[in-house]
Amino acid sequence: MQPNEPFMDPPRLPRGFFAAGRNVGLKTEDNDLALFLSRRPAAAAALFTRNHFPGAPVTLGRQRMRRGQLQGLVVNSACSNVATGEAGLEDAREMASLAAREFADFLGEDGKKAHDAEALEERVLVGSTGVIGRRLPMDRIREGIRGMGSQLGTDPWPAARAIMTTDSRPKVFSLQVGDAVVTAVGKGAGMIAPNMATMLVYLFTDASVEVPELQAALREASRSSFELLSVDTDTSTSDMVVALANGEAGEVDHRAFVDALTALCTRVAEEVARDGEGATKLVRVLVDGAADSSEARTVARSVVESPLMKTMAYGADPNVGRILMAVGKCVGCRIKPERVNAAVQGIEVIRGGRSVDFDESRVRELLGGDPVEIRIELGVGTGQGRALGCDLTAGYIEENAAYASS
Amino acid sequence: MQPNEPFMDPPRLPRGFFAAGRNVGLKTEDNDLALFLSRRPAAAAALFTRNHFPGAPVTLGRQRMRRGQLQGLVVNSACSNVATGEAGLEDAREMASLAAREFADFLGEDGKKAHDAEALEERVLVGSTGVIGRRLPMDRIREGIRGMGSQLGTDPWPAARAIMTTDSRPKVFSLQVGDAVVTAVGKGAGMIAPNMATMLVYLFTDASVEVPELQAALREASRSSFELLSVDTDTSTSDMVVALANGEAGEVDHRAFVDALTALCTRVAEEVARDGEGATKLVRVLVDGAADSSEARTVARSVVESPLMKTMAYGADPNVGRILMAVGKCVGCRIKPERVNAAVQGIEVIRGGRSVDFDESRVRELLGGDPVEIRIELGVGTGQGRALGCDLTAGYIEENAAYASS
Repeated sequence: MQPNEPFMDPPRLPRGFFAAGRNVGLKTEDNDLALFLSRRPAAAAALFTRNHFPGAPVTLGRQRMRRGQLQGLVVNSACSNVATGEAGLEDAREMASLAAREFADFLGEDGKKAHDAEALEERVLVGSTGVIGRRLPMDRIREGIRGMGSQLGTDPWPAARAIMTTDSRPKVFSLQVGDAVVTAVGKGAGMIAPNMATMLVYLFTDASVEVPELQAALREASRSSFELLSVDTDTSTSDMVVALANGEAGEVDHRAFVDALTALCTRVAEEVARDGEGATKLVRVLVDGAADSSEARTVARSVVESPLMKTMAYGADPNVGRILMAVGKCVGCRIKPERVNAAVQGIEVIRGGRSVDFDESRVRELLGGDPVEIRIELGVGTGQGRALGCDLTAGYIEENAAYASS
Repeated sequence: MQPNEPFMDPPRLPRGFFAAGRNVGLKTEDNDLALFLSRRPAAAAALFTRNHFPGAPVTLGRQRMRRGQLQGLVVNSACSNVATGEAGLEDAREMASLAAREFADFLGEDGKKAHDAEALEERVLVGSTGVIGRRLPMDRIREGIRGMGSQLGTDPWPAARAIMTTDSRPKVFSLQVGDAVVTAVGKGAGMIAPNMATMLVYLFTDASVEVPELQAALREASRSSFELLSVDTDTSTSDMVVALANGEAGEVDHRAFVDALTALCTRVAEEVARDGEGATKLVRVLVDGAADSSEARTVARSVVESPLMKTMAYGADPNVGRILMAVGKCVGCRIKPERVNAAVQGIEVIRGGRSVDFDESRVRELLGGDPVEIRIELGVGTGQGRALGCDLTAGYIEENAAYASS
């Protein structure tokens, strides 16, 4: 991960990728339906939620990923199409079919020749997030999607806005790798925890990458980004991270490609945390000196998920004993209390398992910033691990106490 | 557990137990220092937090429990004496010593003869909850405790109020068992999760119970009460549940005693949940049909701890898909989605892993009540389990965003 990767400004879709976004009446305002298209079939890799109740789009997606090839995506917000049974699966299939027709229209004669709409449909992945347990209003989608093919263009923003649910801002980032570009379009906000999140992340590149390499790269990038992310410990039923590589820019250095993918995924993960429901800031917890990296991650996650740490980060109140509490509650980990040191925003607050005198007003001031970084040194081994999260605010409660009806 | 146990009204301390509570300047208002005394040495059992950073009172308590005999308790709120090192341990020892002097005064000539203050001190347990990482203001305690011995009486309320931190009300319950009485005095509110909680619970009985039976009874009672409790997933550094049996009422039926202890612990656990920081209601999750009881508890806990379920319970908004999400995120459990049923307040909302049409306004109305009860049937085995929790509200954020400075 290169934290200082120079992200392209503005970000843009790689060659041969197109997107469109529109309001079709699922949300009261802003776009709610997105299309993404590669003009040629692309090598594809995907990671899906491990929740036992995957939404219909996830079930369909798993089937369609078997061939390792994708060409288009259709994504809606406001309704997740989860717990909707066989009818929901039919709705997801119909969404893909409707999208394929638009894609075929856009691709014109070439597209129609090369891939008739039916074959293209098999290369369309569906994504849905929003309320669980309700059927999609398919009439609105049927009506609204009509003509979207003609809106497909190189501007990623209308589509990036359309996939947002409770996100406050769209998330699009690009990196250059040799002659190629890798671009991430993501959404997050709530029901976000390791083993994926209520998170949709689409990665597009014109680099030429074989399917096994793409899948391995996506796993590696995800492990040090999305797998470290927890907004609220709740694992969504709809998560997916999908990568499409259409090869239009030819081959690139593989290590550079993996690094770029990792940097993009890290950036999206951090932005998802920072834009977590009600959140005002990103919280990074870095653990060093654990017995092994797995225990380091466990401790980091325990701290990043602790509601008391999260409210401390929000209130900027240096009640740093909560860090010890959150480390100490990892009952399965090898921890020697007298060896634990911790620093908040670079200022040592715990040494040898005990509070040290520190400049409270300075820490308070630094805790007011974004991000908040907590470093913990366990002193028992060489294991390192990180976790990404956010503060917990009254805004989270407000958003979630009345979500179904909004 | 007998949910319909007739709790004594008003509750009272069993024979031979005395209590006192006073403000010594640790909190700005209300009592903050409590004494509890048995006039004769009592058989004792205790459970302590498993957090790696136990407070000084826990460390001292573990030492003093070795002999299985206690006579007095001294408990303060506002400062937990955690992460304070050897000096903190000294402070805890001094608290016990100061309390022992008061106890000896109260016991008078008899007491002084039977147990000089030094021997008595070894039978005094200390309890502290409050901010982590600060030294106790021992000058205030030294000053304030003086003369408290003369205030010892049979009224449990001044002491019950003194052990409260962010609790909104004291928690005292009594049950009759044969000729004996068992009384629980507890506090909770925040940093509450299985493996104990920021919870102090003191159980007093005049029944005659041997130490091994008392310890076994306490374990059994705790397993079906405190071990099921999670207010905010954060495990405190200060938790303890302590039982004292002074034998003044003679022997009682052992099963009846264990049942009474369990009923009291359940009642305290439920009251701690209901009075959780910012909480407006108790949430009970009952899981049936799991592969085994361990998986049933895992699923119940996942649901009770889910921030999205908790905000749903608060907002009384029947976004019941969140129940499926929280069941489904138990990735290690054997779950067959198509067999999962769930009911909220007795109304079926999920059948065969899918939302059913239910009367939303009725569920909304029932969710407005206290307690909220969620029943989940997994349909894969015979394992049963429960979890106790509460809703998540803006009040939790307010209390915790600025706790250290309050």
